[in-house]
Amino acid sequence: MTWNRHHILSLADFTPEEYNTVLQTAASFKEVLSRRTKKVPSLQGQVVTNLFFEPSTRTRSSFEIAAKRLSADILNFAASSSSLTKGETILDTAKTYLALGTDIMVIRHRESGVPQAIAAEMDRLGKRVGVLNAGDGQHEHPSQALLDLFTICTLLNPDAPKCELLAGKKIAIVGDILHSRVARSNIWSLTASGAEVHLAAPPTLLPPEFAQYVGSAERLKIHWEIEPALDKADFVMTLRLQKERMSQHLLPSLREYHQLFGMTRDRLRLCQPDVKILHPGPVNRGVEISSDLMDDPAFSLISEQVTSGVAVRMALLYLMGSSSKIGGTG
Amino acid sequence: MTWNRHHILSLADFTPEEYNTVLQTAASFKEVLSRRTKKVPSLQGQVVTNLFFEPSTRTRSSFEIAAKRLSADILNFAASSSSLTKGETILDTAKTYLALGTDIMVIRHRESGVPQAIAAEMDRLGKRVGVLNAGDGQHEHPSQALLDLFTICTLLNPDAPKCELLAGKKIAIVGDILHSRVARSNIWSLTASGAEVHLAAPPTLLPPEFAQYVGSAERLKIHWEIEPALDKADFVMTLRLQKERMSQHLLPSLREYHQLFGMTRDRLRLCQPDVKILHPGPVNRGVEISSDLMDDPAFSLISEQVTSGVAVRMALLYLMGSSSKIGGTG
Amino acid sequence: MTWNRHHILSLADFTPEEYNTVLQTAASFKEVLSRRTKKVPSLQGQVVTNLFFEPSTRTRSSFEIAAKRLSADILNFAASSSSLTKGETILDTAKTYLALGTDIMVIRHRESGVPQAIAAEMDRLGKRVGVLNAGDGQHEHPSQALLDLFTICTLLNPDAPKCELLAGKKIAIVGDILHSRVARSNIWSLTASGAEVHLAAPPTLLPPEFAQYVGSAERLKIHWEIEPALDKADFVMTLRLQKERMSQHLLPSLREYHQLFGMTRDRLRLCQPDVKILHPGPVNRGVEISSDLMDDPAFSLISEQVTSGVAVRMALLYLMGSSSKIGGTG
Repeated sequence: MTWNRHHILSLADFTPEEYNTVLQTAASFKEVLSRRTKKVPSLQGQVVTNLFFEPSTRTRSSFEIAAKRLSADILNFAASSSSLTKGETILDTAKTYLALGTDIMVIRHRESGVPQAIAAEMDRLGKRVGVLNAGDGQHEHPSQALLDLFTICTLLNPDAPKCELLAGKKIAIVGDILHSRVARSNIWSLTASGAEVHLAAPPTLLPPEFAQYVGSAERLKIHWEIEPALDKADFVMTLRLQKERMSQHLLPSLREYHQLFGMTRDRLRLCQPDVKILHPGPVNRGVEISSDLMDDPAFSLISEQVTSGVAVRMALLYLMGSSSKIGGTG
Repeated sequence: MTWNRHHILSLADFTPEEYNTVLQTAASFKEVLSRRTKKVPSLQGQVVTNLFFEPSTRTRSSFEIAAKRLSADILNFAASSSSLTKGETILDTAKTYLALGTDIMVIRHRESGVPQAIAAEMDRLGKRVGVLNAGDGQHEHPSQALLDLFTICTLLNPDAPKCELLAGKKIAIVGDILHSRVARSNIWSLTASGAEVHLAAPPTLLPPEFAQYVGSAERLKIHWEIEPALDKADFVMTLRLQKERMSQHLLPSLREYHQLFGMTRDRLRLCQPDVKILHPGPVNRGVEISSDLMDDPAFSLISEQVTSGVAVRMALLYLMGSSSKIGGTG
Repeated sequence: MTWNRHHILSLADFTPEEYNTVLQTAASFKEVLSRRTKKVPSLQGQVVTNLFFEPSTRTRSSFEIAAKRLSADILNFAASSSSLTKGETILDTAKTYLALGTDIMVIRHRESGVPQAIAAEMDRLGKRVGVLNAGDGQHEHPSQALLDLFTICTLLNPDAPKCELLAGKKIAIVGDILHSRVARSNIWSLTASGAEVHLAAPPTLLPPEFAQYVGSAERLKIHWEIEPALDKADFVMTLRLQKERMSQHLLPSLREYHQLFGMTRDRLRLCQPDVKILHPGPVNRGVEISSDLMDDPAFSLISEQVTSGVAVRMALLYLMGSSSKIGGTG
């Protein structure tokens, strides 16, 4: 197992070895979660701070329970009730939490680049605190893509999830690609794992430049209709549609979106018979996916994704915590 | 001790054996709370999630401290900062917290029936998570009635609180019965324990149908004046008056309400000399009860109720936690 | 070491022995914070409640992490989502948290005197709960002044911080003295330690009566210009400027305030060569202090203050926790 990353900010430069380290570590924590006492002392006495400048329930709860199961202490910072309203800069807020004793900062912000800027400042100050990007603007959401990867690889081989299991698999990503940090992180991890990634969305939500996103037109195809993306797909990742896209005139209506790009039983027939559907949640039932399909355990991996998220986030916090002690170069 | 309930949703079908199991278990936790280190490892590694769709300070804090004293990990969900605003359904929110690893869900919602719907969905999915109703609309608030029962029975016999101690006792419940989930849960527990329950309120807040609430006109009497309810009463439960009842024209004014139905020193003389007064809090001083009476330890059990609440909620979480392991039928 | 205070409400009557007990205890906790596992079991099973009637991120987080490192359980009460909106009095809220099992209450309120009123009520009820004033109106903020004292004394002698180290030192406090609880608490601790304290502010923010604040005109000087206060100063405490002071016509503009009273490199030359600058945070960069000076580790103690805060608050909670067991008279 190799790991010498201090921060987890983007998957753009992740190596297959690093993906596999995360997958293996998450697998061992998944085993811990099946025990009666789902807790290990790995991060006892360490402080994980959730610096959420953008509201979040699901991701924050997932990191919180992951940190608690590693026996860390948690500080939750929510922008609404904060000094930000008192004119403090974001970097000063981060430095305050550093000085309070934070070992790992989990950061979400609606502007792209904020976690990177904080990580750079921590490095400049010579501090060993680790920074984890929990979603920055429309840029990246690495832990979500890693839990998607873990969910898929664990399905393919529960005993030994490895990213190489994705070689040759066809994976469709359907929805608001343009505004999705989840899609961007997934594009990196899936193409690096050898999968063939097909993006599908209306042209307003999928500019042609996306074909060059990972630099290789071979592994990434774009479609302005859903059907070719689904054709013999092994996995379909549906993305959450922000309702504000209507008011921005990027989409006519939710109903039309569902007709053209919603995942339904009819469209299931285009895919492989054992196709599985993912969604990062929260789901707009009947928009991105039909309600009955979402609830069908034969096809939906949505609950598994949430459960995988705890194991994967335990793995990330654990690896960052170890790196900060054994001296990563991240 | 018998216990095979998975969920605690309503007291309508609680048996005296079940009441006594709760009382005995709470008594043993009350003893723990008198120690220097008020903590036991019963729920170590388990996750209790407070799913509060309606704001609450007091009840949430009570469950939180109860869970911490059982060494559980806690997740707090508050509707305001949640995915609900993003269009997620309540059942999907509950399923997300299930997938995150929740063992026991404590649920409050301003609509009646929400905890029941979530519990039914969990059962349908074959999940062993326990659901505790922490107040649903105007329906029930079982843990409040159980802590009231524990407060009274502990007063009657500190060493061995049993619900049979209430046999023949006269208990008045005064106030906004119509809108009160606390009153409804208390009516079940007190009549099942053999007490004679007298309801008193203005007719707008106490429809005649209430006399049939438990099916037996013998154990439940209704009055549209306070005096007959207080006559030789052993205990008086006052209920919180929502100020919005005025704007709904159900009441003329707070002052008139206090004159007609407020608990005062004068009215105390109608009751038994050793009468005790309860209130679920928060109190409107000078409305439901006069300010000096509320603070008089000779008559007021209000503080004891809050303290009992922690012991009773520890007991409920403990019993549900055990049930989910030994296989209750709930 | 002497300590028999139950509550920490004001520094007005603190003795040098008490200051030194806090400094010594904080020094030993600072050592704990440098270990791999930064946690001690001192308050295991005890409950620390943060009763914050005024929003706060920084101070609340500092107390929260301090309490967690002492292994206490924490309850966080935030006024916004509370029963206060339901008409409950502040004293009744405090009594509810007492009855829930609180051992130490950390209280912030925008009205002066609230922590004192709650402490008096707890004493009247014969309860051993400790009350710590975490900022009341414009009155006092003892833990902030104690962490300032610890920061300075630790700099002067890291191995044995004592308040006597301040004898003869010149300390300037610059800014909105009139509205500052931080300034008032610091005036008590610094003059009691033998320092010469110089206050500097525009006349609208520093009434002449302040010269009599500690009863001795010898140890406390006031200035309506910054220069005489800085002249050969050993330490400069800058205070946060509330922007609402402009709308109250107490100040013409932020720019003019910075020109007349802002801490800059130019003004640094008036002070001792090894002068250090403090600020309680959050800082308005370029107002109270120039941005580059704030970030210069040769002069700025701002980060050290935040870190000291955790050690000092651990010390205060620890001392209060011990006092409530060994029987202080506070």
